[in-house]
This record gives sequence, C-alpha cells and structure tokens, in this order.
Amino acid sequence: MTKIIAINAGSSSLKFQLFEMPGEEVITKGIIERIGLPDSIFNISVAGEKIIETLEIANHEVAVELLLEKLTAKGIIESLDEIVGVGHRVVHGGEDFSESVLITDEVLKKIHALSELAPLHNPANITGIEAFKRVLPNVPAVAVFDTAFHQSMPESSFLYSLPYHYYTDYGIRKYGFHGTSHKYVSERAAEMLGRPLEQLRLISCHLGNGASIAAIEGGKSIDTSMGFTPLAGVTMGTRSGDIDPALIPFIMEKTEKTADEVLDVLNKKSGMLGVSGFSSDLRDIETEADDGNDRAELALEVFANHIHKYIGSYAARMYGVDAIIFTAGIGENSDVIRERVLRGLEFMGVYWDPALNKVRGKEAFINYPHSPVKVMIIPTNEEVMIARDVVKMVSNQRS
Amino acid sequence: MTKIIAINAGSSSLKFQLFEMPGEEVITKGIIERIGLPDSIFNISVAGEKIIETLEIANHEVAVELLLEKLTAKGIIESLDEIVGVGHRVVHGGEDFSESVLITDEVLKKIHALSELAPLHNPANITGIEAFKRVLPNVPAVAVFDTAFHQSMPESSFLYSLPYHYYTDYGIRKYGFHGTSHKYVSERAAEMLGRPLEQLRLISCHLGNGASIAAIEGGKSIDTSMGFTPLAGVTMGTRSGDIDPALIPFIMEKTEKTADEVLDVLNKKSGMLGVSGFSSDLRDIETEADDGNDRAELALEVFANHIHKYIGSYAARMYGVDAIIFTAGIGENSDVIRERVLRGLEFMGVYWDPALNKVRGKEAFINYPHSPVKVMIIPTNEEVMIARDVVKMVSNQRS
Repeated sequence: MTKIIAINAGSSSLKFQLFEMPGEEVITKGIIERIGLPDSIFNISVAGEKIIETLEIANHEVAVELLLEKLTAKGIIESLDEIVGVGHRVVHGGEDFSESVLITDEVLKKIHALSELAPLHNPANITGIEAFKRVLPNVPAVAVFDTAFHQSMPESSFLYSLPYHYYTDYGIRKYGFHGTSHKYVSERAAEMLGRPLEQLRLISCHLGNGASIAAIEGGKSIDTSMGFTPLAGVTMGTRSGDIDPALIPFIMEKTEKTADEVLDVLNKKSGMLGVSGFSSDLRDIETEADDGNDRAELALEVFANHIHKYIGSYAARMYGVDAIIFTAGIGENSDVIRERVLRGLEFMGVYWDPALNKVRGKEAFINYPHSPVKVMIIPTNEEVMIARDVVKMVSNQRS
Repeated sequence: MTKIIAINAGSSSLKFQLFEMPGEEVITKGIIERIGLPDSIFNISVAGEKIIETLEIANHEVAVELLLEKLTAKGIIESLDEIVGVGHRVVHGGEDFSESVLITDEVLKKIHALSELAPLHNPANITGIEAFKRVLPNVPAVAVFDTAFHQSMPESSFLYSLPYHYYTDYGIRKYGFHGTSHKYVSERAAEMLGRPLEQLRLISCHLGNGASIAAIEGGKSIDTSMGFTPLAGVTMGTRSGDIDPALIPFIMEKTEKTADEVLDVLNKKSGMLGVSGFSSDLRDIETEADDGNDRAELALEVFANHIHKYIGSYAARMYGVDAIIFTAGIGENSDVIRERVLRGLEFMGVYWDPALNKVRGKEAFINYPHSPVKVMIIPTNEEVMIARDVVKMVSNQRS
C-alpha cells in the first residue's frame, strides 16, 4: 500500500489530493489559498468533515510543511515515509513532453524554459515542484502535463497557416490543453462501452469555465479546439474563443489599448460574460435566460452553437464518431447546454433521450439504446490520472 | 433589349462586362489595369478576339471614357443611350444594406462611411462609382454588396463573444463576404436539383485565392466562415484564416512588428504560401506535391482539412445537408482538393464518384445517383447577378 499526493499549484494556491494506491481511494483532499497574502486559508477534508483555518502562510514551502504536518497531526498518515511519490500538474510541456516524466534537474530546466509559452501557469507549477523538493527531497516527483495527450496530433492539425519558420523558430503551433481530462474520459468511455479504445472514435467535450473539445481516434488526440494558448476554440466563461484575428488591431485602434490589453479583454471580459453582460457563470445565465433575459438566452445559444459545430467538424475529421462525451462542471451538470448541443445531430446518427439527459454529475449514457452514436456523461478526474502516472513512474524507477 | 454594364473597380483596375438583358448574354468583357501608373493596360474581348493595348490612363474617369469610346468605336454599341444601367460591385455594405440598391447621394455617403470596415476595398469601389457618375450622369447606378447575402445570419451566428458594446459601438461582428457568389450558386443549385430553394440546406464552398464556406438554409445564409474581414475562416492562398488570437501579441513581441505589420503578414505571407514556403497558387502546390515535396503536400492537407471540417460543422448547423457546392477557381477546377475535402463524409450521407470528379470548370453532379447528399460543381457568376439586380432596380425605378 502506497500513498501518493497529487498537486495542482497556482501562483497563490495549492490544491492537493492524497491517494491510497493502487486502490485509487482519496484519503483526503483540500486547497490552500491566498499563499503569501494576508489571511491565507487552509481547507482540508478529513473523514468527510471539512476543516477551514485562516492563518499566515508566507510561501509555497511553508504551505507544504503545514500540509504534511496536518496529515500526521490528524493521523491521516503515520509517517512521511508512507508518501512514495508526488505528482504535479504542469500546464505546458511544449513539444518536449508527450507523456508524464520523473522530475530531474534537466526536466525542471525544460519546464522553466516553457514558461515563455505559459507565463501564467508554468512558473506557478514550478513553485509547487520546488516547495515539495525542499520539504521532501527524497520523494520522487512526477510532472503530468496538460498538453502531453495532444502531442499525438498530426502536423496537418497542429500547424497554423503562418510563415512556416514561425513554427520552427518560435514554437508557434496548436498545443491543446485539458489533455489529462480528455485522456481520462476517453479511457473511461472505452470501459463503459466495453470496447477497445484502439477501435473508437470519440469526441470529448470538456466544458467548464475553460472549455475544449477533442477528437480522439484510437485513444490518441488528433485534433482539439484550444490552440497555442487556452484562449482559442469555443467561447468560454470569460474567454472569446476564436475570433477574426484582424479584430485585434481594429480593437486596439478603437479603444486605444495595447495588444496585451486587448488580449486581457479577450481572456477576462469576453466569452459568455461579454455576451450576457452580467456573468461568466452558466448557472446565473441559465436562470436569467429562464426569466426572459434576451442577452442571457443569446449567450447560451452562442456557447452551445460553438460546441455543436465542433462536434460536426470533428465527426467529419474522423469520418464518423462512435461516442460523444460530456465532462467538467458544465458538461456534467447542465442538461440545458447538452440539449442545445445535441439537438439536430440525428443526421449523423446521434439519437439522445431527453429523459435520460436529466442527470447531474454522474456517469451515464443519455442516448436511446438504438442510437449508433453513444452519448455519455463522465465526471472527469485529473487527479487520479496524476496518481496513476506517479505509481507507474515510481515502479519504473525501482525496477 | 437593354444593355447593362457590370463593374468591379479596384484601386488601379476596372473590370467590366457588358450584358444584353434579359437574355444575360455577355457581349463583351475586359479589364483595364495599372490605372494612374505608367503603361496602363486595356484588355477587351470583342467577338471572341482579345485586344490588348498599352497606353496612359491617368485615372478611373479617363478609363471609363476610354471604355465607352471603344464600345462605340468597335461597333459593340451604337450609342451610349443603349446602356440603361451600371452595376457596381461594392465589398462592404455593413448592416445598412441587405440587398442591392440604387446609388443615391445618401447611399454613396453610407458606402464612404463603411470604408472604415473595408479600407482597401470600399474606397476603390467608390472611385469606380464616381467615374461612371461623371461620365454617364443620367444612367442609373446600382450597388451590389459582397456582404448583403449574409445579412440574414442570426445574431447567434454573427456575434463574437466579446464585450457586447464592441458590437453596438464599433460594428464588430461577422459580416461574411463572397455573398454574391454564394447567392448565385445556391439559386443555380436549386434549378439543377429541380427543387425549391426554400426547402434546401446547402453548403457552398467558394474556393479561390480567397476562400469562404457558407451554410445556406432555405435560400438564406445562416453562417459563413469569413468574419469581420475576409481574413477569417479557412486557410487561403496567402491568408491565415482563423488562428489563436493570442498569437498576435506573441508574434509582435518575437518579430518586433507592430499589430498592423503582423496583420499584413497574416494577409499576405500566410495561408498556403506560408505553409508551402514557395507559392500561394494551388496549381504550383499540386505539382510540387506530386513531385514529393512534403511542405507542398502539407499545404494541400491543411487547406482541404479546414474545408472538410467546415462542411461537418455546417451540416451540424443545419441539422443535415442536401447538397454541397464547389465554386470559384479551385472549387471548379481542382479534383485533387475536392477529393480530399469529400473523403470520409459517407457517415453524413455523402457518396461521391471519383470518376465524375475528374471534371473542370463546368456544371456537374459528382455524387453517385443513390447519394442522399448531392455534390455539385457550379462555376460562379457574380457579374450576371450584378446585371440582374440592375435590371430589377431600373424597372422598379421606372414603374
């Protein structure tokens, strides 16, 4: 029996889950927020009970020390020796990493270098890695990348139609994100369908505050809606998704903003927030739309429309589709969005049952039994993917 | 019997076709190039014979005078009185024009104002309009807009997911282009299919040096791939099509270019030219790909891929499709691109015949007879659409 910690470090936060492997049981989980700010918050679940404490946590290293202290103090673990590995979510692995790796000095250097492609995320992920390295220097650490699963895309999918040397000189290409989630649900879908993943063509819709669609053929991502950054693709909570690139200079001129300021608008004030004018939260928008708010209705329609069209395009990409998967906050919980996304797809063999669609947050098939294309809801679980990869890497290392 | 001139004015060029209406016979056509530059070129076809002259043409007004002089001198028309109307192609009609209009001072003022949205095109179109107005002040002139056909798009198709006031304050939305072409081929498709246009769901692929795809339901455009400008959508000869908008600030920083300079790269050095590295001309690229050039092969694959995916997405948009139409230079002539675009669409009812696909530049069905979705080649004819609209407007004016 071995314990594994899965970590997702943000610039001022640290999310954790402690797993008992190989059983994949979550022993405890929580989040430390406002690290380095006044009134840091320590939030942990112990035996079904949530404990929230407010205290001062100067940096990620202190946060890790505190976390390990709590784990022993609460009797969750007897000794730190029980922890055999730590898995870190890392957003950007560029073209260097097409799977998870044991973090060596060399790997850490590469993750540093990739910060250029993910300036908001990789440095925060590195902070988490370094904090654990200092506190638990002898415990192996594994990096699990958001981009890795999409490294199987062929060049005709990942290349932009720009001067070719932009790709070779600057690494400009489609990377794709949410890879760990798309991978998890595609593997789970194969199990639920009772068919080998290698024979399946799947369209995975990860719909949360960020949203991406992936075309997964034979277990490999062959196309995805996010691009060089997580801004591209479908509209999202606050992100615009794809727009005519000529709009950037036009908006710069009209609003007297710099390119970076416009980018900030596209990332933080656009998407469903921009269209609705009042919220990026789908639940608020659904409520307002029900109350007859036209702009809320429009936001729903635009969002669903984008996803609906991606499903058509990815079905074309794979010459057909065997199953459509919905996951993440909206995908798992919003029957309203799923209904609008699925409406009218009978021409490509999608027959779904409105009664079965009334389900929230659990694994389910929502297609009619005779539907050639299956439609599935699969709650995502990126943390368990991290834990599994840690186990794999640690046993490789030992053998 | 009435004669109509259809005009397409560029900044230093004037393309013309003289029609005998209502028979729609092209009596003569030609192009005047390098207007205002040394060694202007006058190119006209008379009775099947091409005449090319090099001479000095100071401006568009001189070009129009010269054109009319030639028409009488060559005996093509007996007197200028035979010309009952002039039709002008105008690129951008914004939200003001959803159909062709008789050009009044008021209309001309609006076309001027819309130059902001089409700074390269509308001013050139206006030059043509003003030249004819001076030379033939009493002949009615009609404006036919590239954007007009797409004004039927619903807001959920044309709105970007940006702060909503960008639409109301700056006119930022999807306009779409090639409207006259998409309209022509959709009407012609209904005739060839022997079915009412109102009952058809069509996907029109206008593939030339510029390329756009339109979803046409019941004769109305409900979505199209070009956007606020003709840069958006699929990759083209030299244009990038859609890219992650976050790339613009990144490229600016990497290449030390301004936003406008980057936009220039996206418009003129990207697309198939950027990918192949040697040409924007599909014929060159096909030849090189045949000779084993990998980057040429990649350019073909990227281009076809984009169109293929749009067909899937627009079929989804209309809950199915009755016919797919190929038009314009590449669409009418390249069996290679059509084959790659159509490959694997059987899942949505598209069964096409490789033998029938070996056709160039003429109206044809290339689907198997049993195919639920028809596939058609229809050479476009924007000029005849202009002539028809002139006849309609002139008779309205008289009645």
